[in-house]
Amino acid sequence: MTLLAGHPTKVGRLAFVDQDYPIVLPVNFRVHRGSVVFRSDTGSKYMAAAMGQKVAFEVDDVDEAWQEGWSVLIQGMCHEITDPHQLKLIDGIGLNAWAGANMHTLEILHHRITGRRIV
Amino acid sequence: MTLLAGHPTKVGRLAFVDQDYPIVLPVNFRVHRGSVVFRSDTGSKYMAAAMGQKVAFEVDDVDEAWQEGWSVLIQGMCHEITDPHQLKLIDGIGLNAWAGANMHTLEILHHRITGRRIV
Repeated sequence: MTLLAGHPTKVGRLAFVDQDYPIVLPVNFRVHRGSVVFRSDTGSKYMAAAMGQKVAFEVDDVDEAWQEGWSVLIQGMCHEITDPHQLKLIDGIGLNAWAGANMHTLEILHHRITGRRIV
Repeated sequence: MTLLAGHPTKVGRLAFVDQDYPIVLPVNFRVHRGSVVFRSDTGSKYMAAAMGQKVAFEVDDVDEAWQEGWSVLIQGMCHEITDPHQLKLIDGIGLNAWAGANMHTLEILHHRITGRRIV
């Protein structure tokens, strides 16, 4: 979570299964209370499909040329944050969405966190 | 595929389902004969799990500050390339693995390619 909180672009990738195939989407995230939070368009059918599902969220910082870097994989469930107090706190940590207007704030309740470092 | 072939870091994310949960891994890729190819450690239990499975492969180029970029999602099956002639051609296109020694060359047989561009 320290690596994630200090990630330069704060873009991770969210994966889940939608209609039989996995899907991966780039997501702008922040770390809030030790969890990954992000926002989603109201109209996103993908995000709707991700709700309440087993998901994976991956963040990495890889330098291809130097063949070094790290990768963190979070596996868990996606749920929506609706508590106004928490939403206000999250507004304060600079969470933008990757694309367009956003309505839903989602959190990943992690079941397992793993990582690897290449040196 | 043109976007992927010109991607600056040639790092994409491979997702598949392993033991109930999705997994996402950063993967150094190239485009070969119109398909995504990459290499994998012999010992990777993850890659073994991905073989013959429905997978997703995502590549993006996102500028968080400017809120612009693109994302391409490939959904298909993973299979191993064993033809020596093809392997030699792939050796010539600068395909390194992200980590350590590599033995297997994998290809994504795409079933569906989708993308979005944020401007």
